[in-house]
Amino acid sequence: MTTTIVAAGHGKAFRLAAGERIRLGLPDGPQVADMFAFALPGLGERLSTEHTRSCLTRLAPVVGEAFYSSRRRPMLTLVEDTSPGTHDLLLSACDQARYTLLGHAAAHRKCVANVVVALGELGLTLAAIPSPVNLFENVAIGPDGALTIEPPRASRGDAVTLEALMDLVLVVSACPMDIMPTNGEDRRPKPVSVERLGAR
Amino acid sequence: MTTTIVAAGHGKAFRLAAGERIRLGLPDGPQVADMFAFALPGLGERLSTEHTRSCLTRLAPVVGEAFYSSRRRPMLTLVEDTSPGTHDLLLSACDQARYTLLGHAAAHRKCVANVVVALGELGLTLAAIPSPVNLFENVAIGPDGALTIEPPRASRGDAVTLEALMDLVLVVSACPMDIMPTNGEDRRPKPVSVERLGAR
Repeated sequence: MTTTIVAAGHGKAFRLAAGERIRLGLPDGPQVADMFAFALPGLGERLSTEHTRSCLTRLAPVVGEAFYSSRRRPMLTLVEDTSPGTHDLLLSACDQARYTLLGHAAAHRKCVANVVVALGELGLTLAAIPSPVNLFENVAIGPDGALTIEPPRASRGDAVTLEALMDLVLVVSACPMDIMPTNGEDRRPKPVSVERLGAR
Repeated sequence: MTTTIVAAGHGKAFRLAAGERIRLGLPDGPQVADMFAFALPGLGERLSTEHTRSCLTRLAPVVGEAFYSSRRRPMLTLVEDTSPGTHDLLLSACDQARYTLLGHAAAHRKCVANVVVALGELGLTLAAIPSPVNLFENVAIGPDGALTIEPPRASRGDAVTLEALMDLVLVVSACPMDIMPTNGEDRRPKPVSVERLGAR
């Protein structure tokens, strides 16, 4: 078992073989982990939030269910979740435009760049950034469809365990958001731990 | 003003200049119109359901709001909506896998193929099918996040009017679903009318 700490505001990509398990955790408190996955070889088949919703007829998987690919194949099973189980599959990954619209005109770290850099470290390039799985993100849906980003319900030590159902590359970005309460009421980006648990 | 009838189960693409308005209507009763849009020239910037939700902090635009692009730019304003205003931005476009999983093993018409064919008629090719705007689709969200496809609340004669905020290509697919009640309790795919209203 090897553990990688993805530094606050940074990203990292991991190649997983079918059957391998990985645990994404919160060593320093509430934090959103933007997660992306792409089938190997090639990145044409991606983890798709819209196909996950369509296949599950649910906004997000619960333990025992899977995240699905753009070809409606199960990619990653949610094996365990010690958090309250609140994850977001609705909102886009942060980019420079997001921070500019929030009033931060200067360059800011962003999940979309983290994905590109992390894949680049594995020699992989991406045509477009898919809609992310925002693990631990707490987005309340009002009766009129209004969406509100609230501090995560997850706390220090919480983790989700995933099992790869195909050979894939998984990308994790410890979201650098420090303006909205995405990463907690303290608005402080924190690290994400990634433990490779090997095959079952 | 020119009107095109998109036949039941088929698709069509339309080039719109910034300022042009277009009305998508239901001449024959309840029906879902899968809608996609891409900025011109090139199709790299797309109508993005996840960026629309993030920019609006709402599941779907209401009249006066816009659909946003993958670069967080407003693309299409929802100018008028004579339907009850129920539209889906959560579920994926139908593909062969969808019908196979529903027990229809034989080839079936599908929105994803309609998009490819419609763009091809304009000499355009697409790398990947984005998450669609499913106009008039009625997806109920349960308190536990369960999603249920119900017959549309829209009825014959209802229409939405959109105004392009940039030069773009808009693709409409009259969804061929005939197994789920997506297109009404009669599960009968119907046409979608497309009226080009010109610039305001």
